[in-house]
Amino acid sequence: MAKVAFIGLGVMGFPMAGHLKQKGGHDVAVYNRTAAKAADWAAKFGGTTGATPAEAARDADFVFTCVGNDDDLRSVTTGATGVLSSMKAGAILIDNTTASAEVARELEAAAKEKGVHFIDAPVSGGQAGAEGGVLTVMCGGEQAIFDKAKPVIDAYARMVGLMGPVGSGQLTKMMNQICIAGIVQGLSEAIHFGKQSGLDIEKVVDVISKGAAGSWQMENRHKTMDQGKYDFGFAVDWMRKDLDIVLTESRRNGAKLPLTALVDQFYGDVQAMGGNRWDTSSLLARLERK
Amino acid sequence: MAKVAFIGLGVMGFPMAGHLKQKGGHDVAVYNRTAAKAADWAAKFGGTTGATPAEAARDADFVFTCVGNDDDLRSVTTGATGVLSSMKAGAILIDNTTASAEVARELEAAAKEKGVHFIDAPVSGGQAGAEGGVLTVMCGGEQAIFDKAKPVIDAYARMVGLMGPVGSGQLTKMMNQICIAGIVQGLSEAIHFGKQSGLDIEKVVDVISKGAAGSWQMENRHKTMDQGKYDFGFAVDWMRKDLDIVLTESRRNGAKLPLTALVDQFYGDVQAMGGNRWDTSSLLARLERK
Repeated sequence: MAKVAFIGLGVMGFPMAGHLKQKGGHDVAVYNRTAAKAADWAAKFGGTTGATPAEAARDADFVFTCVGNDDDLRSVTTGATGVLSSMKAGAILIDNTTASAEVARELEAAAKEKGVHFIDAPVSGGQAGAEGGVLTVMCGGEQAIFDKAKPVIDAYARMVGLMGPVGSGQLTKMMNQICIAGIVQGLSEAIHFGKQSGLDIEKVVDVISKGAAGSWQMENRHKTMDQGKYDFGFAVDWMRKDLDIVLTESRRNGAKLPLTALVDQFYGDVQAMGGNRWDTSSLLARLERK
Repeated sequence: MAKVAFIGLGVMGFPMAGHLKQKGGHDVAVYNRTAAKAADWAAKFGGTTGATPAEAARDADFVFTCVGNDDDLRSVTTGATGVLSSMKAGAILIDNTTASAEVARELEAAAKEKGVHFIDAPVSGGQAGAEGGVLTVMCGGEQAIFDKAKPVIDAYARMVGLMGPVGSGQLTKMMNQICIAGIVQGLSEAIHFGKQSGLDIEKVVDVISKGAAGSWQMENRHKTMDQGKYDFGFAVDWMRKDLDIVLTESRRNGAKLPLTALVDQFYGDVQAMGGNRWDTSSLLARLERK
Protein backbone atom coordinates (compact mmCIF):
# COMPACT_ATOMS: atom_id res chain seq x y z
CA MET A 1 0.00 0.00 0.00
CA ALA A 2 1.47 3.28 -1.19
CA LYS A 3 0.66 6.95 -0.95
CA VAL A 4 -0.73 7.96 -4.34
CA ALA A 5 -1.96 11.20 -5.92
CA PHE A 6 -4.14 11.38 -9.03
CA ILE A 7 -4.46 14.63 -11.00
CA GLY A 8 -7.28 14.85 -13.56
CA LEU A 9 -10.61 13.13 -12.99
CA GLY A 10 -12.07 13.07 -16.49
CA VAL A 11 -13.93 10.09 -17.97
CA MET A 12 -10.64 8.16 -17.83
CA GLY A 13 -9.02 9.49 -14.66
CA PHE A 14 -12.09 9.24 -12.43
CA PRO A 15 -12.40 5.44 -12.62
CA MET A 16 -8.60 4.92 -12.86
CA ALA A 17 -8.11 6.76 -9.55
CA GLY A 18 -10.99 4.71 -8.17
CA HIS A 19 -9.21 1.45 -9.04
CA LEU A 20 -6.00 2.70 -7.38
CA LYS A 21 -8.01 3.19 -4.20
CA GLN A 22 -10.27 0.13 -4.35
CA LYS A 23 -8.34 -2.56 -6.23
CA GLY A 24 -4.87 -1.26 -5.36
CA GLY A 25 -5.79 -0.47 -1.77
CA HIS A 26 -3.67 2.68 -1.89
CA ASP A 27 -4.06 5.89 0.06
CA VAL A 28 -5.23 8.22 -2.77
CA ALA A 29 -5.41 12.02 -2.85
CA VAL A 30 -6.99 13.62 -5.92
CA TYR A 31 -7.08 16.97 -7.68
CA ASN A 32 -9.36 18.13 -10.47
CA ARG A 33 -9.64 21.53 -12.18
CA THR A 34 -13.39 21.50 -11.51
CA ALA A 35 -13.29 20.97 -7.76
CA ALA A 36 -16.84 19.57 -7.52
CA LYS A 37 -15.74 16.46 -9.43
CA ALA A 38 -12.91 15.86 -6.97
CA ALA A 39 -15.41 16.14 -4.12
CA ASP A 40 -17.68 13.63 -5.93
CA TRP A 41 -14.76 11.28 -6.30
CA ALA A 42 -13.79 11.54 -2.61
CA ALA A 43 -17.41 11.00 -1.58
CA LYS A 44 -17.59 7.89 -3.76
CA PHE A 45 -14.20 6.32 -3.04
CA GLY A 46 -13.26 7.77 0.33
CA GLY A 47 -9.96 9.45 -0.54
CA THR A 48 -8.85 13.01 0.09
CA THR A 49 -8.75 16.04 -2.20
CA GLY A 50 -6.11 18.74 -2.72
CA ALA A 51 -6.86 22.39 -3.52
CA THR A 52 -3.97 22.35 -6.03
CA PRO A 53 -2.03 19.60 -7.81
CA ALA A 54 0.92 20.40 -5.51
CA GLU A 55 -1.21 19.89 -2.43
CA ALA A 56 -2.56 16.54 -3.61
CA ALA A 57 0.94 15.35 -4.56
CA ARG A 58 2.71 16.30 -1.34
CA ASP A 59 4.35 13.23 0.30
CA ALA A 60 3.02 10.87 -2.40
CA ASP A 61 5.19 7.96 -3.57
CA PHE A 62 3.42 7.85 -6.93
CA VAL A 63 1.77 10.79 -8.67
CA PHE A 64 -0.47 10.12 -11.67
CA THR A 65 -1.54 12.78 -14.18
CA CYS A 66 -4.30 12.27 -16.75
CA VAL A 67 -5.30 15.54 -18.39
CA GLY A 68 -6.32 16.91 -21.78
CA ASN A 69 -3.19 17.89 -23.67
CA ASP A 70 0.44 19.01 -23.52
CA ASP A 71 -0.39 22.46 -22.11
CA ASP A 72 -2.74 21.11 -19.43
CA LEU A 73 0.01 18.68 -18.54
CA ARG A 74 2.64 21.41 -18.20
CA SER A 75 0.23 23.38 -16.03
CA VAL A 76 -0.35 20.55 -13.50
CA THR A 77 3.32 19.50 -13.39
CA THR A 78 5.78 22.37 -13.94
CA GLY A 79 3.24 25.18 -13.33
CA ALA A 80 3.32 27.34 -10.19
CA THR A 81 1.06 24.96 -8.25
CA GLY A 82 2.13 21.91 -10.24
CA VAL A 83 3.03 18.56 -8.68
CA LEU A 84 6.78 19.00 -9.22
CA SER A 85 6.75 21.96 -6.81
CA SER A 86 5.84 19.63 -3.93
CA MET A 87 6.86 16.08 -4.86
CA LYS A 88 9.46 14.45 -2.67
CA ALA A 89 12.78 13.19 -4.02
CA GLY A 90 12.65 9.55 -5.08
CA ALA A 91 8.93 9.68 -5.89
CA ILE A 92 7.66 8.64 -9.33
CA LEU A 93 5.56 10.81 -11.64
CA ILE A 94 3.46 8.71 -14.05
CA ASP A 95 1.70 10.53 -16.87
CA ASN A 96 -1.34 8.81 -18.39
CA THR A 97 -2.19 11.68 -20.74
CA THR A 98 -1.92 11.01 -24.47
CA ALA A 99 0.62 13.75 -25.16
CA SER A 100 3.67 14.41 -27.31
CA ALA A 101 6.94 12.52 -26.88
CA GLU A 102 8.53 15.94 -26.64
CA VAL A 103 6.62 16.97 -23.51
CA ALA A 104 7.46 13.58 -22.00
CA ARG A 105 11.19 14.27 -22.45
CA GLU A 106 10.70 17.82 -21.16
CA LEU A 107 8.99 16.51 -18.00
CA GLU A 108 11.67 13.87 -17.46
CA ALA A 109 14.27 16.66 -17.37
CA ALA A 110 12.16 18.86 -15.08
CA ALA A 111 11.48 15.91 -12.73
CA LYS A 112 15.18 15.00 -12.62
CA GLU A 113 16.03 18.47 -11.25
CA LYS A 114 13.82 17.65 -8.24
CA GLY A 115 15.15 14.12 -7.84
CA VAL A 116 11.82 12.78 -9.13
CA HIS A 117 11.52 9.92 -11.65
CA PHE A 118 9.26 10.13 -14.68
CA ILE A 119 7.34 7.59 -16.75
CA ASP A 120 5.13 8.43 -19.71
CA ALA A 121 2.26 5.96 -19.65
CA PRO A 122 -0.56 6.70 -22.11
CA VAL A 123 -3.36 4.16 -22.15
CA SER A 124 -5.71 2.54 -24.63
CA GLY A 125 -8.99 0.79 -24.02
CA GLY A 126 -11.21 3.86 -23.72
CA GLN A 127 -13.78 4.72 -21.10
CA ALA A 128 -14.96 1.10 -20.87
CA GLY A 129 -11.40 -0.07 -20.26
CA ALA A 130 -10.89 2.59 -17.60
CA GLU A 131 -14.13 1.68 -15.84
CA GLY A 132 -13.32 -2.03 -15.98
CA GLY A 133 -9.74 -1.48 -14.87
CA VAL A 134 -8.49 -3.35 -17.93
CA LEU A 135 -6.55 -0.69 -19.80
CA THR A 136 -3.45 -1.26 -21.90
CA VAL A 137 -0.63 0.96 -20.63
CA MET A 138 2.35 1.82 -22.83
CA CYS A 139 5.25 3.04 -20.73
CA GLY A 140 8.47 4.89 -21.48
CA GLY A 141 11.16 5.13 -18.82
CA GLU A 142 13.94 3.31 -17.00
CA GLN A 143 13.56 -0.37 -16.21
CA ALA A 144 14.19 0.02 -12.44
CA ILE A 145 11.59 2.78 -12.14
CA PHE A 146 9.11 0.85 -14.28
CA ASP A 147 9.55 -2.19 -12.01
CA LYS A 148 8.51 -0.08 -9.01
CA ALA A 149 5.57 1.57 -10.80
CA LYS A 150 4.10 -1.47 -12.54
CA PRO A 151 2.49 -3.12 -9.46
CA VAL A 152 0.70 0.19 -8.77
CA ILE A 153 -0.38 0.72 -12.40
CA ASP A 154 -1.70 -2.86 -12.44
CA ALA A 155 -4.71 -1.65 -10.41
CA TYR A 156 -6.31 -0.20 -13.57
CA ALA A 157 -4.60 -2.24 -16.29
CA ARG A 158 -4.73 -5.61 -18.00
CA MET A 159 -1.49 -5.09 -19.92
CA VAL A 160 1.43 -2.86 -18.91
CA GLY A 161 4.51 -2.77 -21.15
CA LEU A 162 7.82 -0.92 -20.98
CA MET A 163 8.47 0.19 -24.55
CA GLY A 164 11.83 1.94 -24.18
CA PRO A 165 13.19 5.23 -22.79
CA VAL A 166 10.94 8.15 -21.83
CA GLY A 167 8.75 9.13 -24.79
CA SER A 168 8.44 5.53 -26.02
CA GLY A 169 5.04 5.11 -24.39
CA GLN A 170 3.72 8.11 -26.32
CA LEU A 171 5.33 6.91 -29.56
CA THR A 172 3.69 3.50 -29.09
CA LYS A 173 0.31 5.12 -28.54
CA MET A 174 0.89 7.07 -31.76
CA MET A 175 1.48 3.79 -33.65
CA ASN A 176 -1.77 2.56 -32.15
CA GLN A 177 -3.70 5.58 -33.42
CA ILE A 178 -2.13 5.37 -36.90
CA CYS A 179 -3.29 1.75 -37.20
CA ILE A 180 -6.78 2.71 -36.09
CA ALA A 181 -6.99 5.54 -38.65
CA GLY A 182 -6.35 3.10 -41.50
CA ILE A 183 -8.53 0.31 -40.15
CA VAL A 184 -11.56 2.51 -39.46
CA GLN A 185 -11.47 4.34 -42.79
CA GLY A 186 -11.08 1.03 -44.66
CA LEU A 187 -13.89 -0.56 -42.67
CA SER A 188 -16.10 2.49 -43.25
CA GLU A 189 -15.54 2.32 -47.00
CA ALA A 190 -16.24 -1.43 -46.98
CA ILE A 191 -19.50 -1.07 -45.04
CA HIS A 192 -20.56 1.89 -47.18
CA PHE A 193 -19.81 -0.14 -50.32
CA GLY A 194 -21.69 -3.15 -48.97
CA LYS A 195 -24.75 -1.11 -48.07
CA GLN A 196 -24.76 0.53 -51.50
CA SER A 197 -24.77 -3.00 -52.96
CA GLY A 198 -27.56 -4.25 -50.71
CA LEU A 199 -25.40 -6.75 -48.82
CA ASP A 200 -26.30 -7.91 -45.31
CA ILE A 201 -23.38 -6.46 -43.34
CA GLU A 202 -23.84 -8.87 -40.41
CA LYS A 203 -23.64 -11.84 -42.75
CA VAL A 204 -20.54 -10.46 -44.45
CA VAL A 205 -18.76 -9.89 -41.14
CA ASP A 206 -19.64 -13.43 -40.02
CA VAL A 207 -17.81 -14.78 -43.02
CA ILE A 208 -14.80 -12.46 -43.39
CA SER A 209 -13.98 -11.39 -39.82
CA LYS A 210 -11.62 -14.28 -39.00
CA GLY A 211 -9.47 -13.81 -42.11
CA ALA A 212 -7.09 -11.27 -43.64
CA ALA A 213 -9.68 -8.46 -43.45
CA GLY A 214 -10.38 -9.03 -39.76
CA SER A 215 -9.80 -6.45 -37.04
CA TRP A 216 -10.88 -5.53 -33.53
CA GLN A 217 -12.76 -2.62 -35.08
CA MET A 218 -14.68 -4.94 -37.40
CA GLU A 219 -15.63 -7.29 -34.55
CA ASN A 220 -16.61 -4.53 -32.14
CA ARG A 221 -18.00 -1.71 -34.26
CA HIS A 222 -19.59 -3.13 -37.43
CA LYS A 223 -23.01 -3.56 -35.84
CA THR A 224 -23.29 -0.03 -34.49
CA MET A 225 -21.81 1.38 -37.71
CA ASP A 226 -24.38 -0.53 -39.76
CA GLN A 227 -27.07 1.04 -37.55
CA GLY A 228 -25.55 4.52 -37.84
CA LYS A 229 -24.89 4.71 -34.09
CA TYR A 230 -21.75 6.57 -33.20
CA ASP A 231 -21.81 6.91 -29.44
CA PHE A 232 -19.82 3.82 -28.49
CA GLY A 233 -16.32 4.99 -27.86
CA PHE A 234 -13.50 7.42 -28.30
CA ALA A 235 -14.70 10.83 -29.58
CA VAL A 236 -13.67 12.44 -32.86
CA ASP A 237 -12.38 15.59 -31.08
CA TRP A 238 -9.96 13.43 -29.08
CA MET A 239 -8.89 11.47 -32.14
CA ARG A 240 -8.07 14.73 -33.93
CA LYS A 241 -5.99 15.80 -30.94
CA ASP A 242 -4.08 12.50 -31.10
CA LEU A 243 -3.58 12.70 -34.88
CA ASP A 244 -2.26 16.23 -34.48
CA ILE A 245 0.36 14.85 -32.07
CA VAL A 246 1.16 12.06 -34.54
CA LEU A 247 1.51 14.37 -37.54
CA THR A 248 3.66 16.82 -35.57
CA GLU A 249 5.94 13.97 -34.46
CA SER A 250 6.17 12.76 -38.08
CA ARG A 251 7.73 16.10 -39.00
CA ARG A 252 10.37 15.36 -36.39
CA ASN A 253 11.06 11.69 -37.13
CA GLY A 254 10.64 11.95 -40.88
CA ALA A 255 7.89 9.33 -41.23
CA LYS A 256 5.60 9.67 -44.24
CA LEU A 257 1.96 9.26 -43.25
CA PRO A 258 -0.24 10.05 -46.27
CA LEU A 259 -3.22 7.99 -45.11
CA THR A 260 -3.06 9.27 -41.53
CA ALA A 261 -2.97 12.87 -42.76
CA LEU A 262 -5.95 12.22 -45.04
CA VAL A 263 -8.01 10.52 -42.34
CA ASP A 264 -7.25 13.45 -40.02
CA GLN A 265 -8.82 15.71 -42.67
CA PHE A 266 -11.81 13.36 -42.92
CA TYR A 267 -12.31 13.66 -39.16
CA GLY A 268 -12.32 17.42 -39.74
CA ASP A 269 -15.28 16.87 -42.10
CA VAL A 270 -17.03 14.86 -39.37
CA GLN A 271 -16.52 17.74 -36.93
CA ALA A 272 -18.01 20.10 -39.52
CA MET A 273 -21.02 17.75 -39.68
CA GLY A 274 -21.49 18.29 -35.93
CA GLY A 275 -19.81 15.00 -35.02
CA ASN A 276 -17.33 16.28 -32.43
CA ARG A 277 -18.58 13.84 -29.80
CA TRP A 278 -19.35 10.96 -32.17
CA ASP A 279 -16.97 8.02 -31.88
CA THR A 280 -14.17 7.35 -34.37
CA SER A 281 -16.29 4.94 -36.42
CA SER A 282 -18.33 7.94 -37.64
CA LEU A 283 -16.04 8.16 -40.69
CA LEU A 284 -18.86 6.09 -42.19
CA ALA A 285 -21.34 8.96 -41.63
CA ARG A 286 -19.04 11.17 -43.68
CA LEU A 287 -19.22 8.75 -46.63
CA GLU A 288 -22.99 8.50 -46.31
CA ARG A 289 -23.76 12.21 -46.07
CA LYS A 290 -25.85 13.59 -48.92
CA MET B 1 -19.14 -38.91 -54.53
CA ALA B 2 -19.86 -36.66 -57.51
CA LYS B 3 -18.49 -36.11 -60.97
CA VAL B 4 -16.51 -32.87 -60.81
CA ALA B 5 -14.54 -30.74 -63.29
CA PHE B 6 -11.99 -28.11 -62.33
CA ILE B 7 -10.85 -25.46 -64.83
CA GLY B 8 -7.73 -23.44 -63.97
CA LEU B 9 -4.85 -24.99 -62.04
CA GLY B 10 -2.99 -21.92 -60.83
CA VAL B 11 -1.51 -21.56 -57.34
CA MET B 12 -5.06 -21.63 -55.98
CA GLY B 13 -6.83 -24.03 -58.34
CA PHE B 14 -4.15 -26.75 -58.30
CA PRO B 15 -4.49 -27.56 -54.59
CA MET B 16 -8.24 -26.84 -54.54
CA ALA B 17 -8.82 -29.42 -57.26
CA GLY B 18 -6.55 -31.76 -55.30
CA HIS B 19 -8.74 -31.45 -52.20
CA LEU B 20 -11.86 -32.16 -54.26
CA LYS B 21 -10.22 -35.41 -55.33
CA GLN B 22 -8.54 -36.44 -52.06
CA LYS B 23 -10.64 -34.99 -49.26
CA GLY B 24 -13.92 -34.88 -51.19
CA GLY B 25 -13.34 -38.28 -52.82
CA HIS B 26 -14.86 -37.04 -56.06
CA ASP B 27 -14.19 -38.13 -59.61
CA VAL B 28 -12.27 -35.05 -60.88
CA ALA B 29 -11.42 -34.05 -64.46
CA VAL B 30 -9.21 -30.99 -64.94
CA TYR B 31 -8.33 -28.48 -67.64
CA ASN B 32 -5.55 -25.91 -67.66
CA ARG B 33 -4.48 -23.47 -70.39
CA THR B 34 -0.90 -24.75 -70.06
CA ALA B 35 -1.57 -28.45 -70.60
CA ALA B 36 1.63 -29.60 -68.85
CA LYS B 37 0.27 -28.41 -65.53
CA ALA B 38 -2.91 -30.42 -66.02
CA ALA B 39 -0.77 -33.49 -66.72
CA ASP B 40 1.22 -32.79 -63.53
CA TRP B 41 -1.99 -32.52 -61.59
CA ALA B 42 -3.34 -35.80 -62.97
CA ALA B 43 -0.04 -37.53 -62.25
CA LYS B 44 -0.12 -36.29 -58.66
CA PHE B 45 -3.78 -36.79 -57.83
CA GLY B 46 -4.89 -39.48 -60.27
CA GLY B 47 -7.72 -37.65 -62.06
CA THR B 48 -8.27 -37.18 -65.76
CA THR B 49 -7.56 -34.22 -68.04
CA GLY B 50 -9.60 -32.61 -70.81
CA ALA B 51 -8.15 -31.04 -73.95
CA THR B 52 -10.66 -28.17 -73.62
CA PRO B 53 -12.81 -26.84 -70.77
CA ALA B 54 -15.82 -28.32 -72.54
CA GLU B 55 -14.23 -31.77 -72.64
CA ALA B 56 -13.34 -31.71 -68.94
CA ALA B 57 -16.84 -30.51 -68.01
CA ARG B 58 -18.84 -33.04 -70.02
CA ASP B 59 -21.15 -35.10 -67.77
CA ALA B 60 -19.91 -33.33 -64.62
CA ASP B 61 -22.40 -32.59 -61.81
CA PHE B 62 -20.25 -29.71 -60.54
CA VAL B 63 -17.91 -27.60 -62.63
CA PHE B 64 -15.45 -25.28 -60.89
CA THR B 65 -13.62 -22.40 -62.58
CA CYS B 66 -10.69 -20.55 -61.03
CA VAL B 67 -8.95 -18.33 -63.58
CA GLY B 68 -7.28 -14.93 -63.79
CA ASN B 69 -9.92 -12.35 -64.62
CA ASP B 70 -13.30 -11.60 -66.22
CA ASP B 71 -12.07 -12.21 -69.77
CA ASP B 72 -10.36 -15.49 -68.91
CA LEU B 73 -13.57 -16.50 -67.21
CA ARG B 74 -15.71 -15.68 -70.24
CA SER B 75 -13.30 -17.66 -72.40
CA VAL B 76 -13.54 -20.88 -70.33
CA THR B 77 -17.32 -20.64 -69.85
CA THR B 78 -19.16 -19.00 -72.74
CA GLY B 79 -16.29 -19.28 -75.26
CA ALA B 80 -16.37 -21.72 -78.19
CA THR B 81 -14.85 -24.55 -76.16
CA GLY B 82 -16.15 -23.24 -72.84
CA VAL B 83 -17.80 -25.42 -70.22
CA LEU B 84 -21.31 -24.16 -70.97
CA SER B 85 -21.09 -25.72 -74.44
CA SER B 86 -20.97 -29.20 -72.89
CA MET B 87 -22.46 -29.02 -69.39
CA LYS B 88 -25.58 -31.11 -68.79
CA ALA B 89 -28.86 -29.56 -67.65
CA GLY B 90 -29.21 -29.47 -63.87
CA ALA B 91 -25.45 -29.30 -63.28
CA ILE B 92 -23.94 -26.50 -61.19
CA LEU B 93 -21.22 -24.10 -62.35
CA ILE B 94 -19.22 -22.69 -59.41
CA ASP B 95 -16.82 -19.86 -60.14
CA ASN B 96 -13.95 -19.36 -57.67
CA THR B 97 -12.34 -16.53 -59.65
CA THR B 98 -12.25 -13.11 -58.03
CA ALA B 99 -14.16 -11.32 -60.76
CA SER B 100 -16.75 -8.59 -61.21
CA ALA B 101 -20.32 -8.91 -59.95
CA GLU B 102 -21.32 -8.01 -63.51
CA VAL B 103 -19.68 -11.07 -65.08
CA ALA B 104 -21.28 -13.22 -62.38
CA ARG B 105 -24.74 -11.99 -63.40
CA GLU B 106 -23.83 -12.41 -67.08
CA LEU B 107 -22.78 -16.05 -66.46
CA GLU B 108 -25.91 -16.76 -64.46
CA ALA B 109 -27.98 -15.70 -67.48
CA ALA B 110 -25.84 -17.70 -69.92
CA ALA B 111 -25.99 -20.78 -67.67
CA LYS B 112 -29.75 -20.50 -67.33
CA GLU B 113 -30.17 -20.78 -71.10
CA LYS B 114 -28.55 -24.23 -70.88
CA GLY B 115 -30.51 -25.28 -67.79
CA VAL B 116 -27.32 -24.95 -65.73
CA HIS B 117 -27.19 -23.32 -62.27
CA PHE B 118 -24.56 -20.76 -61.34
CA ILE B 119 -22.86 -19.74 -58.10
CA ASP B 120 -20.17 -17.07 -57.79
CA ALA B 121 -17.79 -18.25 -55.08
CA PRO B 122 -14.60 -16.20 -54.75
CA VAL B 123 -12.29 -17.27 -51.96
CA SER B 124 -9.97 -15.73 -49.42
CA GLY B 125 -7.14 -17.29 -47.48
CA GLY B 126 -4.49 -17.18 -50.20
CA GLN B 127 -2.16 -19.91 -51.39
CA ALA B 128 -1.64 -21.23 -47.85
CA GLY B 129 -5.42 -21.50 -47.38
CA ALA B 130 -5.80 -23.29 -50.72
CA GLU B 131 -3.01 -25.74 -49.90
CA GLY B 132 -4.42 -26.41 -46.44
CA GLY B 133 -7.98 -26.71 -47.75
CA VAL B 134 -9.11 -24.05 -45.28
CA LEU B 135 -10.33 -21.27 -47.56
CA THR B 136 -13.18 -18.90 -46.84
CA VAL B 137 -15.72 -19.07 -49.68
CA MET B 138 -18.18 -16.24 -50.28
CA CYS B 139 -21.09 -17.43 -52.40
CA GLY B 140 -23.81 -15.74 -54.38
CA GLY B 141 -26.76 -17.75 -55.70
CA GLU B 142 -30.01 -19.47 -54.83
CA GLN B 143 -30.37 -21.23 -51.48
CA ALA B 144 -31.39 -24.60 -52.97
CA ILE B 145 -28.43 -24.63 -55.35
CA PHE B 146 -26.06 -23.51 -52.60
CA ASP B 147 -27.30 -26.35 -50.39
CA LYS B 148 -26.31 -28.85 -53.08
CA ALA B 149 -22.93 -27.24 -53.77
CA LYS B 150 -21.79 -26.60 -50.19
CA PRO B 151 -20.89 -30.21 -49.28
CA VAL B 152 -18.68 -30.35 -52.37
CA ILE B 153 -17.06 -26.93 -51.75
CA ASP B 154 -16.37 -28.02 -48.16
CA ALA B 155 -13.49 -30.15 -49.45
CA TYR B 156 -11.26 -27.06 -49.76
CA ALA B 157 -12.93 -24.68 -47.30
CA ARG B 158 -13.18 -23.91 -43.60
CA MET B 159 -15.99 -21.40 -44.00
CA VAL B 160 -18.60 -21.33 -46.78
CA GLY B 161 -21.30 -18.63 -46.65
CA LEU B 162 -24.25 -17.77 -48.89
CA MET B 163 -24.22 -13.98 -49.05
CA GLY B 164 -27.25 -13.33 -51.26
CA PRO B 165 -28.19 -13.59 -54.95
CA VAL B 166 -25.62 -14.16 -57.71
CA GLY B 167 -22.94 -11.45 -57.53
CA SER B 168 -23.09 -11.25 -53.73
CA GLY B 169 -20.05 -13.48 -53.34
CA GLN B 170 -18.01 -11.13 -55.49
CA LEU B 171 -19.36 -8.05 -53.67
CA THR B 172 -18.42 -9.63 -50.33
CA LYS B 173 -14.90 -10.34 -51.59
CA MET B 174 -14.72 -6.68 -52.63
CA MET B 175 -15.62 -5.60 -49.08
CA ASN B 176 -12.85 -7.90 -47.88
CA GLN B 177 -10.28 -6.26 -50.17
CA ILE B 178 -11.39 -2.72 -49.21
CA CYS B 179 -10.85 -3.55 -45.53
CA ILE B 180 -7.41 -4.97 -46.30
CA ALA B 181 -6.39 -1.85 -48.25
CA GLY B 182 -7.06 0.36 -45.22
CA ILE B 183 -5.58 -2.00 -42.65
CA VAL B 184 -2.35 -2.63 -44.55
CA GLN B 185 -1.68 1.02 -45.39
CA GLY B 186 -2.40 2.03 -41.77
CA LEU B 187 -0.18 -0.75 -40.45
CA SER B 188 2.58 0.20 -42.89
CA GLU B 189 2.48 3.83 -41.77
CA ALA B 190 2.53 2.75 -38.11
CA ILE B 191 5.52 0.43 -38.57
CA HIS B 192 7.33 3.03 -40.67
CA PHE B 193 6.65 5.64 -37.96
CA GLY B 194 7.81 3.28 -35.21
CA LYS B 195 11.04 2.40 -37.01
CA GLN B 196 11.76 6.08 -37.63
CA SER B 197 11.36 6.58 -33.85
CA GLY B 198 13.58 3.64 -32.94
CA LEU B 199 10.79 1.58 -31.34
CA ASP B 200 11.02 -2.21 -31.10
CA ILE B 201 8.16 -3.23 -33.40
CA GLU B 202 7.81 -6.71 -31.86
CA LYS B 203 7.40 -5.19 -28.42
CA VAL B 204 4.84 -2.68 -29.66
CA VAL B 205 2.77 -5.39 -31.34
CA ASP B 206 2.89 -7.51 -28.17
CA VAL B 207 1.27 -4.65 -26.29
CA ILE B 208 -1.24 -3.22 -28.78
CA SER B 209 -2.32 -6.20 -30.89
CA LYS B 210 -5.22 -7.30 -28.67
CA GLY B 211 -6.83 -3.85 -28.54
CA ALA B 212 -8.53 -1.35 -30.86
CA ALA B 213 -5.55 -1.26 -33.25
CA GLY B 214 -5.44 -5.04 -33.63
CA SER B 215 -5.93 -6.88 -36.90
CA TRP B 216 -5.17 -10.17 -38.60
CA GLN B 217 -2.64 -8.30 -40.71
CA MET B 218 -0.85 -6.99 -37.60
CA GLU B 219 -0.71 -10.46 -36.05
CA ASN B 220 0.41 -12.24 -39.19
CA ARG B 221 2.53 -9.75 -41.11
CA HIS B 222 4.25 -7.36 -38.68
CA LYS B 223 7.29 -9.57 -38.26
CA THR B 224 8.01 -10.00 -41.96
CA MET B 225 7.21 -6.32 -42.61
CA ASP B 226 9.67 -5.30 -39.88
CA GLN B 227 12.27 -7.48 -41.64
CA GLY B 228 11.44 -6.06 -45.06
CA LYS B 229 10.33 -9.47 -46.36
CA TYR B 230 7.47 -9.30 -48.81
CA ASP B 231 7.09 -12.81 -50.16
CA PHE B 232 4.49 -14.14 -47.73
CA GLY B 233 1.19 -13.83 -49.46
CA PHE B 234 -1.08 -12.33 -52.05
CA ALA B 235 0.84 -10.47 -54.78
CA VAL B 236 0.55 -6.76 -55.56
CA ASP B 237 -0.39 -7.44 -59.20
CA TRP B 238 -3.40 -9.45 -58.02
CA MET B 239 -4.38 -6.86 -55.44
CA ARG B 240 -4.38 -4.19 -58.16
CA LYS B 241 -6.63 -6.41 -60.28
CA ASP B 242 -9.02 -6.77 -57.34
CA LEU B 243 -9.00 -3.05 -56.55
CA ASP B 244 -9.73 -2.31 -60.21
CA ILE B 245 -12.83 -4.50 -59.90
CA VAL B 246 -13.77 -2.72 -56.66
CA LEU B 247 -13.34 0.78 -58.08
CA THR B 248 -15.27 -0.12 -61.23
CA GLU B 249 -18.13 -1.49 -59.13
CA SER B 250 -18.08 1.69 -57.00
CA ARG B 251 -18.94 3.68 -60.12
CA ARG B 252 -21.99 1.44 -60.49
CA ASN B 253 -23.19 1.33 -56.87
CA GLY B 254 -22.24 4.92 -56.03
CA ALA B 255 -19.95 4.12 -53.09
CA LYS B 256 -17.27 6.68 -52.30
CA LEU B 257 -13.90 5.00 -51.71
CA PRO B 258 -11.23 7.70 -51.32
CA LEU B 259 -8.82 5.56 -49.31
CA THR B 260 -9.23 2.52 -51.54
CA ALA B 261 -8.53 4.61 -54.64
CA LEU B 262 -5.44 6.11 -53.00
CA VAL B 263 -4.07 2.75 -51.86
CA ASP B 264 -4.61 1.41 -55.39
CA GLN B 265 -2.35 4.22 -56.60
CA PHE B 266 0.19 3.36 -53.90
CA TYR B 267 0.25 -0.23 -55.16
CA GLY B 268 0.97 1.26 -58.57
CA ASP B 269 4.07 2.86 -57.03
CA VAL B 270 5.08 -0.53 -55.63
CA GLN B 271 4.76 -2.05 -59.10
CA ALA B 272 6.96 0.77 -60.44
CA MET B 273 9.52 -0.20 -57.75
CA GLY B 274 9.57 -3.71 -59.23
CA GLY B 275 7.26 -5.12 -56.60
CA ASN B 276 4.72 -6.84 -58.86
CA ARG B 277 5.18 -10.18 -57.09
CA TRP B 278 5.76 -8.78 -53.58
CA ASP B 279 2.89 -9.38 -51.18
CA THR B 280 0.36 -6.70 -50.22
CA SER B 281 2.29 -5.70 -47.09
CA SER B 282 4.95 -4.15 -49.35
CA LEU B 283 3.14 -0.81 -49.02
CA LEU B 284 5.74 -0.37 -46.26
CA ALA B 285 8.57 -0.61 -48.81
CA ARG B 286 6.98 2.31 -50.66
CA LEU B 287 7.11 4.47 -47.52
CA GLU B 288 10.72 3.46 -46.87
CA ARG B 289 12.06 4.03 -50.38
CA LYS B 290 14.71 6.73 -50.63
